[in-house]
Amino acid sequence: MTSALRIGIAGLGTVGAATVRLLEEERELLARRCGRPLEVRAVSARERGRSRGIDVSRYAWFDDPAALAAAAEVDVVVELIGGADGVAREVARAALRQRKHLVTANKALLAHEGTALAACAEAAGVALGFEAAVAGGIPICKALREGLAANPITRVYGILNGTCNYILSAMREAVQRGERGDFAPILAEAQRLGYAEAEPSFDVDGIDTAHKLAILTGLAFGCRLDFEGIHIEGIRGIDGTDIAFALELGYHIKLLGITRRSEAGIEQRVHPCMVPRSAPIAHVEGVLNAVVADGRYVGASFFEGRGAGGGPTASAVVADVIEIARGARAPAFSVPAAALDRLPRVPLEERYGAYYIRLMVVDRPGVIADVAGALRDHGVSVEAMVQRQRDPGEPVPLVMTTHETPEAAMQRTLAQIARLNSVVEPPHMIRIEAL
Amino acid sequence: MTSALRIGIAGLGTVGAATVRLLEEERELLARRCGRPLEVRAVSARERGRSRGIDVSRYAWFDDPAALAAAAEVDVVVELIGGADGVAREVARAALRQRKHLVTANKALLAHEGTALAACAEAAGVALGFEAAVAGGIPICKALREGLAANPITRVYGILNGTCNYILSAMREAVQRGERGDFAPILAEAQRLGYAEAEPSFDVDGIDTAHKLAILTGLAFGCRLDFEGIHIEGIRGIDGTDIAFALELGYHIKLLGITRRSEAGIEQRVHPCMVPRSAPIAHVEGVLNAVVADGRYVGASFFEGRGAGGGPTASAVVADVIEIARGARAPAFSVPAAALDRLPRVPLEERYGAYYIRLMVVDRPGVIADVAGALRDHGVSVEAMVQRQRDPGEPVPLVMTTHETPEAAMQRTLAQIARLNSVVEPPHMIRIEAL
Repeated sequence: MTSALRIGIAGLGTVGAATVRLLEEERELLARRCGRPLEVRAVSARERGRSRGIDVSRYAWFDDPAALAAAAEVDVVVELIGGADGVAREVARAALRQRKHLVTANKALLAHEGTALAACAEAAGVALGFEAAVAGGIPICKALREGLAANPITRVYGILNGTCNYILSAMREAVQRGERGDFAPILAEAQRLGYAEAEPSFDVDGIDTAHKLAILTGLAFGCRLDFEGIHIEGIRGIDGTDIAFALELGYHIKLLGITRRSEAGIEQRVHPCMVPRSAPIAHVEGVLNAVVADGRYVGASFFEGRGAGGGPTASAVVADVIEIARGARAPAFSVPAAALDRLPRVPLEERYGAYYIRLMVVDRPGVIADVAGALRDHGVSVEAMVQRQRDPGEPVPLVMTTHETPEAAMQRTLAQIARLNSVVEPPHMIRIEAL
Repeated sequence: MTSALRIGIAGLGTVGAATVRLLEEERELLARRCGRPLEVRAVSARERGRSRGIDVSRYAWFDDPAALAAAAEVDVVVELIGGADGVAREVARAALRQRKHLVTANKALLAHEGTALAACAEAAGVALGFEAAVAGGIPICKALREGLAANPITRVYGILNGTCNYILSAMREAVQRGERGDFAPILAEAQRLGYAEAEPSFDVDGIDTAHKLAILTGLAFGCRLDFEGIHIEGIRGIDGTDIAFALELGYHIKLLGITRRSEAGIEQRVHPCMVPRSAPIAHVEGVLNAVVADGRYVGASFFEGRGAGGGPTASAVVADVIEIARGARAPAFSVPAAALDRLPRVPLEERYGAYYIRLMVVDRPGVIADVAGALRDHGVSVEAMVQRQRDPGEPVPLVMTTHETPEAAMQRTLAQIARLNSVVEPPHMIRIEAL
């Protein structure tokens, strides 16, 4: 058995403490699987005395995580502080500068600086592991980098944020129970249960999903990460009425991150989608995550598992450490950093797909003719239409699904419809994804 | 860029030809991802002149695959001949003896000789890759060996044979259309469509599933492979009546391979299962495969994809070749061969679970009392009972589900019930799995 791999852990929140616990509890199993012991040698956090269910007195303590990253007794730095700038970035850079392997669960940092960090790691001859940054316990980074590496990947999409999926699942269940299924009270309930943060915008506005999507794009297509190129919409605009119509039309509504490679370049987008009930991803419920990768030879591969929490995230962190202990070195983003392509962005306006539209209209003669005229003017063809009566005098929902059409045409159509006198609310639009 | 990795391919059937095509079509992408070219240098098959959609004149030709395995111009031998003995075994052994890396899709060979082959490969300092041997395009070997390697695995189960899953899915669809859904005509249809072999017993009797399960057991638990320790039942005994009752009770019937680690040892079994409709694996349809791994920290990870065919299998074969080109060397069965545990078998009799039982009974007073008496005698408690009237005079089905009970008690109960005069057919029993 060769010498121990010495680990320093910066950040002892839920994930950091779970990682220390896993490394201690499974010490023997891990040594067997790695051919050498994995030893926690140093830890760092803001408060030394806080109770975390682990005995930090066994490890060297660092008040300054950047000092831990540079410490001579550490071979692998595990960064679990979080955040794209400030301390976490400093720790990551210090580790690579000192030629330490770096393992991180920090999706924000990677989304913004993944390309640069991969180049630094390669230059230093060390590993950069980030399995824990995307979809927690699902080994999707490894699958894209290695398991599916024989395939040109055409598309990757997934449910990457458990908070949004929990909220959308709960909204749908409420609608199915005959309740309204509005967003606000269900968000409040998710906050009460600990599934959503007090400040939820990072999750519900799609930013967290976009961070993960940027990483998946780099892995799948061997290209430089481009977080700024992602079109991002969250789930605040979804209401129970749309969920009810989705069910009636055979769809579930999910917040997906989608990245697609075409001749023209890379299309990255995060937004609520109507997904057909026949698609496996439609049935991923609650806080679970799921990812689908489409490869030229393998077809569609579907992965589902727990996306967050101490256990699954620690499992992914330690998998990266095992990889390092075993001496494996696949390039962080599937190809060497210098060879990462710089691919053009395909703007959302070029999406070609079907759409769900809900208008709230005054129920009077000519309304449908006006709407149909707007659709015709922009070459948008209607697949199905549903109008339902409410109390007389109240606006009624007029719901349509379209055949496949360019996003740009759809946007122009919606702008024209919004100007109609008989349409009393801004149109609600949800993209229908062919999966 | 370092020197090319030189590949010899033994066997040019569907998978062999697809592998050659993939390596040629994706030459550039693969070189980028590996940091070096992957070059097919030699091939071998029974008939040189056969049309396969590839130009074999570009490669050194070997009539004798064992000679290919020993050829100086080959670094990696890809064995795609199949079969547990004879030529395939000879090729595998010759390759390792000559210190060539070995990649194989041969589940039968691995199930029987996996432990020995892993030891030979380690002794020779070369890789043994077999991602293609289990569940085709699903990178489950890699997931167990690496992605989930931080977890003690408690259980792995899956749909590992597309033929059986196709037949069971088609039987259920027939029942849902109001037809009988009998096994024989649907097998015949599957044979006509090319989803089942002319000689189907390898698939429908569960042997292929068991080969794959033996490999998963080794990977998940770091133990010596024990194909002989697997309890194997196929799907010939399932009929439409059971599928109809399963649907009524909220279950789908699937042929699962299940391997479980407990204090007592390893329990490996292949048999038809009733799986609750709420489990993701219940919805894996047609020829798709799926695997679920339960890890202590990660929870349940679910993987679904195409399990067979040229493209998915070639994708898995080439993933192993990429691994070799990149220089990665995780131990074949998760721990070094010398450290593989020899774990005791837990016999099927110790299974503890619920059961579905269908009896065909003569409908006369006292029948239920007799059956209930047998159950009581062995401590088996009934969860639900369904009896339905048919034409008078004909035997009627009496269907029960039990609470959890030891298999041994269930077997004794069934033996006693089979002896009752009012029970006119051997009892039908299907295990209900808590997933």
